[in-house]
Amino acid sequence: MERPLYRVVIDTIVERIASGALPPGAMLPSETQLGAELGVSQGTARKALIELEGRQLVQRVQGRGTFVTVRTPETSLFNFFRLRNPDGAQVRPELVAEHVARRPATPAEAAALFGEPDEVVEVERVRSLNGRRVAHEVSVVPARLFPGLFERAPLPNTLYVLYQQAYHIIITRAEESLRATLADAPVAKALEIAPGTPVLHVERQAIDVLDRCVELRRSHCVTEDQVYAVSLS
Amino acid sequence: MERPLYRVVIDTIVERIASGALPPGAMLPSETQLGAELGVSQGTARKALIELEGRQLVQRVQGRGTFVTVRTPETSLFNFFRLRNPDGAQVRPELVAEHVARRPATPAEAAALFGEPDEVVEVERVRSLNGRRVAHEVSVVPARLFPGLFERAPLPNTLYVLYQQAYHIIITRAEESLRATLADAPVAKALEIAPGTPVLHVERQAIDVLDRCVELRRSHCVTEDQVYAVSLS
Repeated sequence: MERPLYRVVIDTIVERIASGALPPGAMLPSETQLGAELGVSQGTARKALIELEGRQLVQRVQGRGTFVTVRTPETSLFNFFRLRNPDGAQVRPELVAEHVARRPATPAEAAALFGEPDEVVEVERVRSLNGRRVAHEVSVVPARLFPGLFERAPLPNTLYVLYQQAYHIIITRAEESLRATLADAPVAKALEIAPGTPVLHVERQAIDVLDRCVELRRSHCVTEDQVYAVSLS
Repeated sequence: MERPLYRVVIDTIVERIASGALPPGAMLPSETQLGAELGVSQGTARKALIELEGRQLVQRVQGRGTFVTVRTPETSLFNFFRLRNPDGAQVRPELVAEHVARRPATPAEAAALFGEPDEVVEVERVRSLNGRRVAHEVSVVPARLFPGLFERAPLPNTLYVLYQQAYHIIITRAEESLRATLADAPVAKALEIAPGTPVLHVERQAIDVLDRCVELRRSHCVTEDQVYAVSLS
């Protein structure tokens, strides 16, 4: 089956965003301009823009035009950090510890990450809320995709904003697998809880705009005062 | 601010689906017909249909038309039952126990459920996989919204299909809050595990097409062989 025309438009725009030719906040060509440039009807261009908006890659502003989404620290935290107060209110955890290291990839990491990397950068962090440690996160990314990441430490609170701004790597979704487990000694120490406390164990694969798995993240969260909130549809 | 025209089209179609005037599988009027009937342009009608498709209430079939989504047992299980094998494969748990009761609503239930019900129907179920109990679920719905539900027991595997077919109540999303906890005595007994085993505790509010909270569900899941999988974007 041939690729429908609106998919050609979508792929073209996605490549421009991924290459940095269309940076965050940039205005896209109008439907008419896009149609003329790519040889498709205005309706086809519109259909592509609507799908790109649905994927949250662009935002259409009534009467002004269409813009590449800016992944602010706020949207990044809101979408990808799922701890909430039990009433649903968002929380703003603080970074209280960070350790960044460069090391060889494990076979499992090489198999899961884009480009089968030999070497990865590991970012270990602890977040706290109201003076209580709530999350221990270990993120692993291919060293080659993120040159100089190791030297940039200490890193900003929201890594995905850094990925976009410094590396044009735009995380668009994350697949998470959750389990209830008991904190082992290292996790208990990092979170300052008793070993054997129940914690939420979250394994994440973060996928970028080019559909590449560019980060693995293992988190352990204390869910006494907060919950992991998710919307299904 | 006035309601934009395409929202009027959306609300009209949603009401028809919710009332049963447009049952699952029914074909919607064409964009031209919708435009003429509701006094809007074809483009406005199309915009509304695209949003309804995004909300998975309708499906557009190339060259045939637009149809009200049929919530099959498969889609219902796939979207709202999140246990997966660690490799991501879907699992098909079996129902091994069910207890249905009619009882007064607790104050918290009356406050959370649509219509502040005095009376609820409670459906308690246990699901198993490969001979091992994996989930204990307690669903609570307003008795008035689901007349005769109590008398229908034993209920089918996927409640949301029954809600749609028998009551025109279409669940479109669910808000879930997850915690890691230790199984207490009743949960341990229902799941045939040792008290103190870590379990995933899930609190759900199920929201229907009219944006009403029509079901509360509390689940406890064993996450030794399976995980709770979710996609964030």
